Amino acid sequence: MTDQMYRIALASRPTGAPTAENFSYESAPIPVPGEGEVLVRVHYMSLDPYMRGRMDDAASYANPVAIGGTMEAGAVGEVIASNSPVFKPGDYAFGTFGWATHGCLKAEMLRKVDPKVAPLTTSLGVLGMPGFTGWFGLTEYGKPKAGETLVVAAATGPVGSMVGQVARLAGLRTVGIAGGADKCKMAVDTFGFDACLDHRAYETASDLRKDLAAECPDGIDIYFENVGGKVLEAVVPLMNNFGRIPVCGMISWYNAGNLGAGAKDALPGPFLWRNILVKFLSVNGFIISNHFDNYPNFLREVGPKLASGELAYVEDIAEGLENAPAAFMGLLQGKNVGKQVVKVI
Amino acid sequence: MTDQMYRIALASRPTGAPTAENFSYESAPIPVPGEGEVLVRVHYMSLDPYMRGRMDDAASYANPVAIGGTMEAGAVGEVIASNSPVFKPGDYAFGTFGWATHGCLKAEMLRKVDPKVAPLTTSLGVLGMPGFTGWFGLTEYGKPKAGETLVVAAATGPVGSMVGQVARLAGLRTVGIAGGADKCKMAVDTFGFDACLDHRAYETASDLRKDLAAECPDGIDIYFENVGGKVLEAVVPLMNNFGRIPVCGMISWYNAGNLGAGAKDALPGPFLWRNILVKFLSVNGFIISNHFDNYPNFLREVGPKLASGELAYVEDIAEGLENAPAAFMGLLQGKNVGKQVVKVI
Repeated sequence: MTDQMYRIALASRPTGAPTAENFSYESAPIPVPGEGEVLVRVHYMSLDPYMRGRMDDAASYANPVAIGGTMEAGAVGEVIASNSPVFKPGDYAFGTFGWATHGCLKAEMLRKVDPKVAPLTTSLGVLGMPGFTGWFGLTEYGKPKAGETLVVAAATGPVGSMVGQVARLAGLRTVGIAGGADKCKMAVDTFGFDACLDHRAYETASDLRKDLAAECPDGIDIYFENVGGKVLEAVVPLMNNFGRIPVCGMISWYNAGNLGAGAKDALPGPFLWRNILVKFLSVNGFIISNHFDNYPNFLREVGPKLASGELAYVEDIAEGLENAPAAFMGLLQGKNVGKQVVKVI
Repeated sequence: MTDQMYRIALASRPTGAPTAENFSYESAPIPVPGEGEVLVRVHYMSLDPYMRGRMDDAASYANPVAIGGTMEAGAVGEVIASNSPVFKPGDYAFGTFGWATHGCLKAEMLRKVDPKVAPLTTSLGVLGMPGFTGWFGLTEYGKPKAGETLVVAAATGPVGSMVGQVARLAGLRTVGIAGGADKCKMAVDTFGFDACLDHRAYETASDLRKDLAAECPDGIDIYFENVGGKVLEAVVPLMNNFGRIPVCGMISWYNAGNLGAGAKDALPGPFLWRNILVKFLSVNGFIISNHFDNYPNFLREVGPKLASGELAYVEDIAEGLENAPAAFMGLLQGKNVGKQVVKVI
């Protein structure tokens, strides 16, 4: 038994896309759990686009990761020591252990995971934060109605694929957008989208808009926003009156600096604002961590559909903590196929 | 009795701010009411910022005015002939008669107005479309809660003054923005705003933001949007988490062309989008004509407060139809003080 654990720290803040130099692989003593704390040996950790935001020094809904601090991540693993009556060694737990082989948190910060119900990795994706994000945002802010049309980008990702499938089951026409022909095929074949467009095949937003309009003959009622950029610009003029836009991310802009009022090469604000006004749109930003009280409802509705096979999911598993930075950089470029997970042990 | 009426037509579409050349003063025979129609001699017509949008040839929630067509307006006047059992000569009615001395519409397009309850002009302002817009947008989308802070621009206008007063009566701190020291004084003295800033005194959005932050020590929970531009840019970074932005107009951008994706000198979209995301904002565009079913509720709540003097209103009355274009151009520059009305007879 070693007394050392490993973690990946933020070595420096990226300007634009992160590079390997922004990360450092560090060792540290395995922490000893204090009063009420639980020590977990991480098996799988999650990689998600929001982590790019934590690398910047800009005000957001969460504090930035400090230079030298461990990169943030949700992760799942086995309890190896516990000072809490709620967890015993051998239990499995989800927590924000970061990019690390071990994590030590108060028991109330953890959620027990039963590997017999579903594979451990699903607690990071389809049954975890991303799946919950898709389900909640669509249900709460998208207000889907049978016969309407929904568009979502990153359609094979863990958020987009949940959004598309829940909308399809609710009777909507679903049109995905994804990067590359293979992902578009997967969106239709695996996740049941009615159509999927490859955003890489379009030079401009107006080119993309033309084909999107053809796939959405009745306009767009719900645009589930997780990418921003060209897709947003293509979609907005196609929105129907009284359309809804839940906003949970804007990955295409995450590498674009702080996007402050000085940024000149971006989609003009008045273009967005005018469409919100003249089409009576409802636009709602949200982060799922404000809505954990709905998590039991999510599990109750989605769990059985996962078990029955009504809902599909796809995972992309990188091997080894040391490969997390490369997998993360790939994620920001859309190189992953399905939910990006890192197998830590 | 003359058989001629007069109207103001759109002579040409403005590029930027409208000029006198964009309007023409025309005469026409007074129409003879058909089956179910009512002929009204207009006493007062309303001038509102939305009319600028109707002069452009861009898709919006309403069709543009045709070249040679009568400029649109709500107006109020006396019934002089009627083929409807609902209206008789001598009654007063509100309808969209346009910039004209007479109007002829189906009875069901008209609303009866009782000049004994409140002056005729109030049906165009505080008890009409603008007041209803302010009350409805604030109530429905702003969801005001006692102790919160609200910001609204054009604070002495008929929308802004309604928003500020209803919010104050609901227990909010209210901060107005207006053009010029006199209007700011009126916002505080007449409409009871806790503070009012003169946007003309600030060169940049960040200068305005600094003083706005000082007047909103607990941040901004509701920004009632009717102007866009510099005020929007100043406000957005001060919004609190879970803030609400009802959007009913953007007057500062109305002269800026179609504000399409090519407009480069405007507030960047990502700046807006990022704030919506990271602050969990709820942004709702609306136009009051979609919500007329709420008008009786509005009258029931606001009417008595107007009668008791709890709610103040201010009107700016131009004399003569021929002076409507000049009054309208002044309105777009904020030269009016209070609700802009034109006395037609």
